[in-house]
Order: sequence, then structure tokens, then C-alpha cells
Amino acid sequence: MAYRKVDQEIMRNVRQIITESKRILTEKQDLASYSFDASFGTYWPELVVQPKTVQEVAGIVNLANKAKIPVYPRGASTSLSGGPLPVEGGIVIDLSTMNHKLEVIPDDLVAIVSPGILTAAIHEAAEQAGLMYPPDPSSSLVSTIGGNLAENSGGPRGLKYGVTKDYVLGLEVVTPQGEIIRTGSRTVKNVTGYDLTKLLVGSEGTLGIITEATLQLIPKPLETATLSAIFDDIVTSGKAISKVLTSGIFPAKMEIMDQACIQAVESYQPLGLPIDAEAIILIEVDGHPLAVKDEIREAARICEQIGARQVQIASTATEQANLWKARKLVSPAITRMKPTKISEDATVPRSQIPAMFARLKQIREKYNVNLVVFGHAGDGNLHPNIVADRRDGEEMKRVEQAVEEIFAAAIELGGTLSGEHGIGNMKSAFMEMELGAIGLDMMKRIKDSWDPNHIMNPGKIFPSPGQRLNLTKG
Amino acid sequence: MAYRKVDQEIMRNVRQIITESKRILTEKQDLASYSFDASFGTYWPELVVQPKTVQEVAGIVNLANKAKIPVYPRGASTSLSGGPLPVEGGIVIDLSTMNHKLEVIPDDLVAIVSPGILTAAIHEAAEQAGLMYPPDPSSSLVSTIGGNLAENSGGPRGLKYGVTKDYVLGLEVVTPQGEIIRTGSRTVKNVTGYDLTKLLVGSEGTLGIITEATLQLIPKPLETATLSAIFDDIVTSGKAISKVLTSGIFPAKMEIMDQACIQAVESYQPLGLPIDAEAIILIEVDGHPLAVKDEIREAARICEQIGARQVQIASTATEQANLWKARKLVSPAITRMKPTKISEDATVPRSQIPAMFARLKQIREKYNVNLVVFGHAGDGNLHPNIVADRRDGEEMKRVEQAVEEIFAAAIELGGTLSGEHGIGNMKSAFMEMELGAIGLDMMKRIKDSWDPNHIMNPGKIFPSPGQRLNLTKG
Repeated sequence: MAYRKVDQEIMRNVRQIITESKRILTEKQDLASYSFDASFGTYWPELVVQPKTVQEVAGIVNLANKAKIPVYPRGASTSLSGGPLPVEGGIVIDLSTMNHKLEVIPDDLVAIVSPGILTAAIHEAAEQAGLMYPPDPSSSLVSTIGGNLAENSGGPRGLKYGVTKDYVLGLEVVTPQGEIIRTGSRTVKNVTGYDLTKLLVGSEGTLGIITEATLQLIPKPLETATLSAIFDDIVTSGKAISKVLTSGIFPAKMEIMDQACIQAVESYQPLGLPIDAEAIILIEVDGHPLAVKDEIREAARICEQIGARQVQIASTATEQANLWKARKLVSPAITRMKPTKISEDATVPRSQIPAMFARLKQIREKYNVNLVVFGHAGDGNLHPNIVADRRDGEEMKRVEQAVEEIFAAAIELGGTLSGEHGIGNMKSAFMEMELGAIGLDMMKRIKDSWDPNHIMNPGKIFPSPGQRLNLTKG
Repeated sequence: MAYRKVDQEIMRNVRQIITESKRILTEKQDLASYSFDASFGTYWPELVVQPKTVQEVAGIVNLANKAKIPVYPRGASTSLSGGPLPVEGGIVIDLSTMNHKLEVIPDDLVAIVSPGILTAAIHEAAEQAGLMYPPDPSSSLVSTIGGNLAENSGGPRGLKYGVTKDYVLGLEVVTPQGEIIRTGSRTVKNVTGYDLTKLLVGSEGTLGIITEATLQLIPKPLETATLSAIFDDIVTSGKAISKVLTSGIFPAKMEIMDQACIQAVESYQPLGLPIDAEAIILIEVDGHPLAVKDEIREAARICEQIGARQVQIASTATEQANLWKARKLVSPAITRMKPTKISEDATVPRSQIPAMFARLKQIREKYNVNLVVFGHAGDGNLHPNIVADRRDGEEMKRVEQAVEEIFAAAIELGGTLSGEHGIGNMKSAFMEMELGAIGLDMMKRIKDSWDPNHIMNPGKIFPSPGQRLNLTKG
């Protein structure tokens, strides 16, 4: 697609829409901050705008659509899949500054939020009202809700509480033509026509720009407790997880660390972790204090009975923090090993976790890459992380091959390319492998019917002909 | 749109796709059974087929698309909004006989089901594995999962557990061109491209035919307890509901019956209900036995403190059944009053329930209709039911006006036309009122891009020009 460049005429129009000149950025040092995210590559926008109102967003999109200029919505740029990267240049719409609204309405169990609000601020505001906003992406302290919505972020609480999409009741959206629409309502139940809300959440900014969201809140669980269980082999740990889930216990979190992960953490900071164990699992239950106390004991009993080498229960906040410490140290531990971290989120049906671990072990050996695995065992959402050095072209080629094989393995095992990070420009090359040509075409029809000029976040989700993974360009 | 009729050439082709002649119905007495559902009007199909395989479904749809013949997928025809009615004639695809698969896979917390499986059979199969399939439409004993999926059915457990859509991980679908695609996967987390799964669930058969679904199951709560609370005025009952929900208790069900409802039941079968009370609420909690016991007591204490006239707790199955008896008698009680029942499902934000009750009272008086209200107070999904006599044209005109005003009131209060029954041909006239012209157009673009020949369930969801509610035609 041939796009128009941002020229003087366009700039004059932009200045009529956004009259405060400090919210229009064109200097190189400003554009630089918008040329990257937490994934790969550097792509320069021609112009960055920082709208404060939905009318300003609509005005810019309307202008861009008429002129055929790419538009890249952006939150806090924590994306691991390239969601906000302006790969075709054009205009970046910085929504992190559109953060005027965070309103909790306890009687309706909802929060109304602007896209630039930090996810952690929503957690806090909900808690102050005795409520909870369940989605908990690990980036919640620094990521905006707008980004979470665009990417349909997950998090450790996915198994019990679902993902971002499960808590979105309604949206205000600017369409690719610059029209303002509202989807959904302020109710949990709504079957009036097609579910545009859930289509837009997770569409990675390719179908419109979310300018406000109505989020569902739930009563806040009164207490939590955590256990850790050490397993000599990973298959047994999988059996323990299954047994817990079919005994009436519904844990909030079930996390797993593999042996490479345990060893990486222990060599980074000696905590006395068992470096000969194949897996450590962490289980957190939440809810009524009496239930939590009983359930964590029952879960511990099940782990022991199935064959855990050692089980430890933590009830106080300090004890729980200690158990989670090893898990939290994984990222610092592995980024110390090598400078470049490739964080994947291939997801498999829960019963296939042991098989996936076996495949990942083969891949590690075959391509001789530094691969450690942790993730959300309860919902099959694993995070194979490869650490490498970007400056080492030969190593990066091996990493590319390893990543391709990780995707193939996840799909073969009945899973998916991406559980919670999104497709962006990182995984678009693999879409047809998972969806088939017709499945992908049905998605493309929606895109084409909504955004015939392909101005909304072009270069994302849909592969260009012959596209392959490339971790060294850009 | 001009459709082709089912002629001899089409019949020859149909017989090549479905070779068992007993699964091709053309006799008048057979077609009669397919001319109605649980809503209004009689519309005759030209042909009914009973496919057993996805290939047969795909073959018929492919044929119909090429010939431009309307296709109407149908389950158990319990729809209250006209979903399966063959309003343009054509071919009814009876999916109630496609019921070969009901497979529970406990290790993955999923069930794989054919569309013709009864919803209650899924409840049972899940329970046998210590699991639960939460969506519980009141019709679950007689409705098929295919119909539940097409309409995104709700039920009393909506507040805590959500609706059908929240438990669908993946689908096998026949597209309007007769292609077979798979959407989603067997995982809770999946962000690979647009969420076609959640777009198709609730699309009322207008975007394709669901031929298999992968449903999420959850650990079965070990115990339930119920309370009933009688309130002198409805505003106080609303306050009690809010207070319970912000005290850390997350009830599975919160039902409400208004005064007209209480009086109708009491005059149908004297149970000693307080006919001077403005509201009875029923609260059911489920989960760990210790939590359930404590939470139901706490909920009772809150109701008393806020001003309930009387609160009763039931723990045993028999006691609970007694408390639910009044609620279960509502339908028989009101259908005895008059033969025609119009069951609405307009839904409002929970805080607006008292305001909605006030509006409904005005509407009852203004149009002099027999209007009783019960519903799911926890999620704002009310069921205003009007009983009338279809043969009385003058009365039905008043009913039409009353229904129109109910929809307008729900939307004015920030709610929606339909919480769980769907749009069908009953409510399509009101779509633009809720969605606006552009919102509706964005839905239409999806329909047009997927089904350019408009063969999939035509006459549903989207209004024809100048369409109005009509309860007397058909």
C-alpha cells in the first residue's frame, strides 16, 4: 500500500485539530522516543500527536484516512510483539497522555477509564472500594489500560479470572474513518447485535482506537495463601496440578519454573533452591479466609500425595513474598546472562504442558540456545525465554529457528502462537500456520470492511507475502 | 434481496449431499414443526435437512450460497426472539440431530460438544468429572448448546460466572460460503488475531453455522446456600444487593421478584407470600462449605441491617428448593392469567434497577397491561413479562407500545435491548436506537464481508427500512 507522507498541508490541518502546539511532536529527539517498544527493531514515525479528547483523536484519524497516512496508536510501549511500532512511518497517536478519567462506580461494579490510565491505578482504585479488577499483566505498574485493551493482556490470574477481554463491558472507539461509536453497555449481559467490544479488545489497534472503556469489577477476595511444591520430574508436577483442579479448588494462580529457570535464579542469587529438581510450582488460592486456609492445606496434601519432594505453605504476606521471590527473580537472573531477551508466550492445553516442556528441551539442545521456561501452569500459558546477544548474528539466526520451532510445537499440541503478548509484527509470519488460509481470510475481510485504506496500525497481525521472522532487522 | 426458491434441480443436489432420504423433509406436516419457535409468528421453510456431519452442513451451505437460497440453522427452537424462524422461506438446517459428541477432558478443563447436545447433558457430564459448566439458561433442560452458542444465552448465574460466551474457547464453523474453519483453541488464553470465537457466539446464525464447540469447564463449587429477604420497598432491596457485593461476597445468584409477581404467584398457589411487600430477593452463594456457611449468614445480616422485613436462610437441598419455589412458580402463575406471554430481557446497570422498576410501573399503568417483573438483580438483567391474549388486537397494540417503551427506558438508563434472549426478528426494529446509525453500520460491514449474498439467517438482527415491532403478524 502506498501511503502519503506527512507534508506541510497535513501539518496545517493537524494544528487545526490539536491547537496546543506542545502536543504535536516533530523534532528528531522527540520522535526517537516513539521509535521502539519492548520488542525488536527501530521504526521512526513522521509525527507524534498527544490528544487529550476523543474529538482530537477522531479529527486526526479522519484526516489520516482521507489523506491515506498510517496511524499508530500507542500506550506505554511495553509491548513484546511490536504492537505500537510505526513500521510504515506516519502518525503515532500517543494515548498515554489521555488519562483524565478513572471513575469507580461501586453500585454498578464498574470502572470507567481513559486509555492512558496505568493498569495498577485501576487495581488500586478498585481495592479502595472493596472491589477487584482481576487482569494482572506483569507489566501492570508501567503499562496503560489502553495497551492492555488493544492487546487483550493476560497475567498469572488468567486461569481463575480470565483475561482483559473478560472484564470489558463497553467501549468508546474512534473508527478508521474517524467516527466515534460506543459499543456494549454498562451491563454484564448484552446480546444486542455483534460483540464489537470483544472484537475490538485484542485487535491490536488495527480496527480503531479505544478512547474510553467500561470495565467490570468484582468483589475483592478477602484473603490469599500460597504454597510452593518441588517436583523431581515435571510430569508429576502436571499430575498434581490436574488433581488440584478436579478437587473443587480453583486457584487464583498456578505458576511453574523449569530446571533451567531454577538454576538460573540460584546462580544469580543463592536462595537454597533445589537445582536438581525438574520443576517448582507455586499455587495461590484466594477468597473467604476459612476457605483459603482449608484449600491451601488440601492443595498441599494433594501435591504430597502425588509425589512432591517438598511442600511449603505461606499464609502471611511476608511468607508469601518469600515464596514468590524465586519467581520474581527469573527476569533479572536471565537478563544478566545475556543482553537480549526474547520472551515468548506460546500456549498449550494444560494437559500438554509436560509434552511442551519435552519439546522445549529438544529445541534448547538442537539450536544450542539459552532457553529457560516459566509460566502460568494452570492455563497452559508458558513463557519460554531465550537470552542471546543481538550483536551476534550467527546466534540470532539460531534463535530465530528455535522460536519458529517453539511456535510450531505449540500449534501441533493444540495450542496457540500467542497467549497474551499479541501478534504485532513479531508473529504475523506464523498466522496462516495456526489459522489456515481461510481462517485468516475471514479476519482480513473484517479488517478490509472496517479500514479499506489500511491506515490503522498497518504492518501488524496480517503477514505480508513471504514474510518470515527476523530478529536482526529494523 | 431476491432469493431463489428450492426447485427440482436444488433438490437433486441436496440429495447428493445428504444421501439418507429420511433426513430430508419436504412434507407439509414435517415442515409445520419448523415454522415456529417460542416467540411469535409462523413462517414456513421450503425444505428441512437434518445433517449428521460438518461435511453435510458445509455442502448444503455451499449449495445455498451459490444458488442464493436462505439458510436457517435451528436447534431446539426455544428462542424467545425469533432466532430460528425461516422468515424468508428457504432451507432450515436442523442441528438438533447433530449430537454425536459430548466429551469431557478433565485434564484440560474442557468439553468438546456437537451443537445438538442438550445444555443440561453438558452440566451433568461436567459434574461427573468434578467440574462445572457455569452457563445456566432457564431452558437448559430442553435447549441445545448450538442454540445457546448462537444466542449467547445467559441465566441466573450471570453475575458471578458470566454468560455462554465466557466459556467458549474454540469453534468449528461452516462459513457462509460453505468453508469449514476452526477458531480459537483449547486454551483460556489466545490472542492470535481477531477473536472470531466471540464474534460468532451470539451472532444468531447470521455469520455461519457452529458445528462443534470447545467449552471451558471450571472446578465444581462444593456447596451452595440460599437466603430469601422480604423488603417493604424496592429501593431498599437494591441497597442491600449493593452492600452484599461490596463486602467481599460474590453470590452465584441474586434474583428479584416485584410486587405484581409476588401477588400473581400467591393467587396461583397460596404459599403465604407477603403480598404487601414491594420485593423479595433470593441470594445463592456457592463455594467452599466453610465459606458458604459464613457468607450466607453475613449476607443475611446485611439484608437485616439495611432494612429487610424478614430474612430466611436455607442450607439443605430441601430448604433451598422451598425458597426457590415461589420464583419457579412465576411462569405457570402468569401464563394462567392469559394465554400469550411476552417475555422481555431488557437489562440495565445494577444501580438503575430501582429506577427501571419505577419506569415499568408507569408503563403498566399507562398502557393498562398485565406486567410482572422478576429477574437477575445481581446483573441488572430483568424479565418484564406481559401476559395478554393474542386474539385481542386492541390489547396487543397496547402491548406493542408498552414493549417499545420498555426498550426505550432500558437504553435511557444506560442498559441494553437484550441481555440474554437475542435480537432475532423481534427486536431488530430497535437496533439503531441503541447502537446509532454508525454503530449499526460497523456490524453490517462485518455481515456483508462474510455473507455478501445474505443467505445466513436473513431477516434477523438487522432492521429492514421502516421496520416496527409487530406482535400480531406472521
